[in-house]
Amino acid sequence: MANLGEEQDLLSKIFDILKSERVFDPKAGDLVFPFKHPQELKSLLCLDLSTAVPCAGSAERENIVRMVIQYSIKTAHPNYHNEMYAAPDLYGLAASWVTDALNACQFTFEAAPVFSLIESMVLEYFLKLCGFEDGEGVFTPGGSMANMYAISMARHKMQPDIKIQGMYGQQCLKIYTSEDAHYSVTKSANWLGLGEANVLKISTDHLSRIDPGALEAALQTATVGQDGSRPLIVSVTAGTTVFGAFDELDKIADICARFGTWMHVDAAWGGAALFSDHYRKLLLNGLERADSVALCPQKLLGAPLQCAMFLSRHKGLLTSCNAACAEYLFQTDKYYDISYDTGDMSVQCGRKVDSFKLWFMLRARGPEWFQLAVENALSCAQYFLRAITENAFFKLVRTKFEFTNVCFWFVPKRLQLASRSGQDETDDWWAEVQKVTLILKERMVKKGSLMVSYASHPCKKLVYFFRLVVKCVPPPTTERMDYIIQEMVAIGGEL
Amino acid sequence: MANLGEEQDLLSKIFDILKSERVFDPKAGDLVFPFKHPQELKSLLCLDLSTAVPCAGSAERENIVRMVIQYSIKTAHPNYHNEMYAAPDLYGLAASWVTDALNACQFTFEAAPVFSLIESMVLEYFLKLCGFEDGEGVFTPGGSMANMYAISMARHKMQPDIKIQGMYGQQCLKIYTSEDAHYSVTKSANWLGLGEANVLKISTDHLSRIDPGALEAALQTATVGQDGSRPLIVSVTAGTTVFGAFDELDKIADICARFGTWMHVDAAWGGAALFSDHYRKLLLNGLERADSVALCPQKLLGAPLQCAMFLSRHKGLLTSCNAACAEYLFQTDKYYDISYDTGDMSVQCGRKVDSFKLWFMLRARGPEWFQLAVENALSCAQYFLRAITENAFFKLVRTKFEFTNVCFWFVPKRLQLASRSGQDETDDWWAEVQKVTLILKERMVKKGSLMVSYASHPCKKLVYFFRLVVKCVPPPTTERMDYIIQEMVAIGGEL
Repeated sequence: MANLGEEQDLLSKIFDILKSERVFDPKAGDLVFPFKHPQELKSLLCLDLSTAVPCAGSAERENIVRMVIQYSIKTAHPNYHNEMYAAPDLYGLAASWVTDALNACQFTFEAAPVFSLIESMVLEYFLKLCGFEDGEGVFTPGGSMANMYAISMARHKMQPDIKIQGMYGQQCLKIYTSEDAHYSVTKSANWLGLGEANVLKISTDHLSRIDPGALEAALQTATVGQDGSRPLIVSVTAGTTVFGAFDELDKIADICARFGTWMHVDAAWGGAALFSDHYRKLLLNGLERADSVALCPQKLLGAPLQCAMFLSRHKGLLTSCNAACAEYLFQTDKYYDISYDTGDMSVQCGRKVDSFKLWFMLRARGPEWFQLAVENALSCAQYFLRAITENAFFKLVRTKFEFTNVCFWFVPKRLQLASRSGQDETDDWWAEVQKVTLILKERMVKKGSLMVSYASHPCKKLVYFFRLVVKCVPPPTTERMDYIIQEMVAIGGEL
Repeated sequence: MANLGEEQDLLSKIFDILKSERVFDPKAGDLVFPFKHPQELKSLLCLDLSTAVPCAGSAERENIVRMVIQYSIKTAHPNYHNEMYAAPDLYGLAASWVTDALNACQFTFEAAPVFSLIESMVLEYFLKLCGFEDGEGVFTPGGSMANMYAISMARHKMQPDIKIQGMYGQQCLKIYTSEDAHYSVTKSANWLGLGEANVLKISTDHLSRIDPGALEAALQTATVGQDGSRPLIVSVTAGTTVFGAFDELDKIADICARFGTWMHVDAAWGGAALFSDHYRKLLLNGLERADSVALCPQKLLGAPLQCAMFLSRHKGLLTSCNAACAEYLFQTDKYYDISYDTGDMSVQCGRKVDSFKLWFMLRARGPEWFQLAVENALSCAQYFLRAITENAFFKLVRTKFEFTNVCFWFVPKRLQLASRSGQDETDDWWAEVQKVTLILKERMVKKGSLMVSYASHPCKKLVYFFRLVVKCVPPPTTERMDYIIQEMVAIGGEL
């Protein structure tokens, strides 16, 4: 039934197929990907399974794999800037391939001896980086889940009986975050039964940082006796999705200490700054005072997807909150030290091993490499910001950005006079700029030469603008930053 | 800074390294893995990151990778039967490697054009297999999360205002499952704010199937006016973790219809039977009447970890429950058909692409291959059951098993007389049998020749017994089943 020879044959070719399709090092002149509309792509690649017959042989299998690769986005392309992740670090990728092949599942030392230890080593490393002396953590399937962990842990610490009794008869628990925070806080409030209406989105300043005064006032209101509600958690952000803003952690920590409220830091994006002493001091000062933090090495650092973790300073709380003590799995009378049987700390049962790729990246490169990579990404973003500041085709959404996000409008020639004088930025003018964003985005994608994402910001009443996010992998350069400017002008200058 | 040559060099060798370490086709005489205690292993592999310096060169990097492989469990070993997963299907693995290299994230068609379509094709395929005419689904990081989705969706359908207001002021919502169900139902009740005490664990019959009469009586009790609570969901199991029991879905569907209660089927383990007409009729009759189902192709079918999905017949409910409508991501005025921008249906934000490996397995092999693989696993399990039935070293926990689980005690010579006569199975005798289970397990692991898991069942007051679970990959054979018997007798016969 099995044909191990044919199966291994395809596997043995995967590296060469990927290399020949230039997945690892696309040239600047290659397409980022050839855009096709969904229906077109579906029939082109014969994706429908209901009509499919088994592949006739190895040539057909290889052909299918090649087609999937050809029409997929090349995240390693130097002009791919669309998302908060890009190419996978190649040492990380090598470790991913090994992880996949070993197909281990993480829940007991018995099931995954080496990987259980590796996970604990990586968690220890990042706990120390965060300044959590005697903490604990768990890998999570993405940053959203890590943020959900934080709220769940804060609730369990405050009201451990909710685990058993549910939310019935509880006073209303409030979640504080900023209007610029990630939407996973809202999604978590929904699932955890806390209610989206009980997420208070505090206003932010000119850099999109949470307003500490407004936060304090809101916490003051939610004290028992006033409106019957109670502060559960303050979830602040180190590196917001759109503007890359860092809430002022030290100030927030003071406030949380005063109210005795759990302080969570969503550092999914900005946590990469931990590797640079300079930026750590500048952006993450006070992180060590938080109760918990979410990290996503799968974003700026280029750890292959998925690679995220939840860290907390409250050792034992993960088990206390999550353990269901299934006797068929987590026996306590084993023949080895069961302190690495960490499966019951997680809300999942078995988990894919996500730690080895990150461990191997750290082991192979050492922390200094990460420092240089993070500082290079920041310096490229700053270079880009300077370069567009005096360029008439670009209008900055902000004049200052704290991280590698740079947000701007593209202003084609016909709209530039108004923009430069600042006099005639009427509603009509803005409507035109918004249209330009959409058309330029579409043209860039369809040409396949450049991908930069766009966003809006309803709270601040901003029309669609472009958001460049610079990452570590592939290593950005000033040449690639210059190219963004040239190519946008070339495609959009006459729009 | 980057050294693409050296990085690609390691990557290009991964297949050969894995092959030379016999990860893909270990021989029966190889060790499943060389057991070491945690502290021993930690220093042997130099896992500590705090003292590590960057690797000096390619030889050191390769050496680290080899060591990790050498001390890891070879899930493709023919004598590895420990978990509900084993080796990855090699076509699935090839697709995993491609997925990893492309490093795409699933949330919009823009971010992952090919993979967005592939996910929708796979979901469509399995919806049809389940008999859900116009349903929907989402890939989840494991089966536990899929079960949590079910409870969250059922709650949203019943009380959509909980999304906004939270659980405050709600009447008590009850979850019905069986005492043999997976503990993820309990974990979900905790996180979702429903409370573990509100999970009613209905008793099971001699095969570990839920007692329909007891379920009906429990549902009857929880009607408003009696105890103020309300049935939220009936979560039954198709293939329980320990005994592989299938709750009688058609009977349960009748009951759920009568009470208007959401019926969820945790088919993480038994869902593989969908591929065999014979076993589908025998074991999954009535599945098509359920409201939702959890599937885990990462288990019996051998899809590489992670690969699981939540399917439901209620089209639109995932979006209604989970959408947070983040404007920076899910713009509605795009240049392409946004029906594949499915990210907001998920409680996660971006998700690792888990669909391509399964799609490629189906595409390369065709459904008939899966039918044969599932039927072969079942036939090997039945062969093993017959073989130990008349063997004095084995005492069956049950005489009948519905799926590929076979549970038994090992009875060394000195304890056999009592066992055979059935007269002298005193508490002392059982205590000895329990000890034998633990010692034999330890000896098998330390010898490295065979891995079979063990379990207990507190509800049924059973002492530790062995649980064999037969999977599709690597393809089991009667020879390997015979080996289990021989090797257990060889190691444990004189205990």
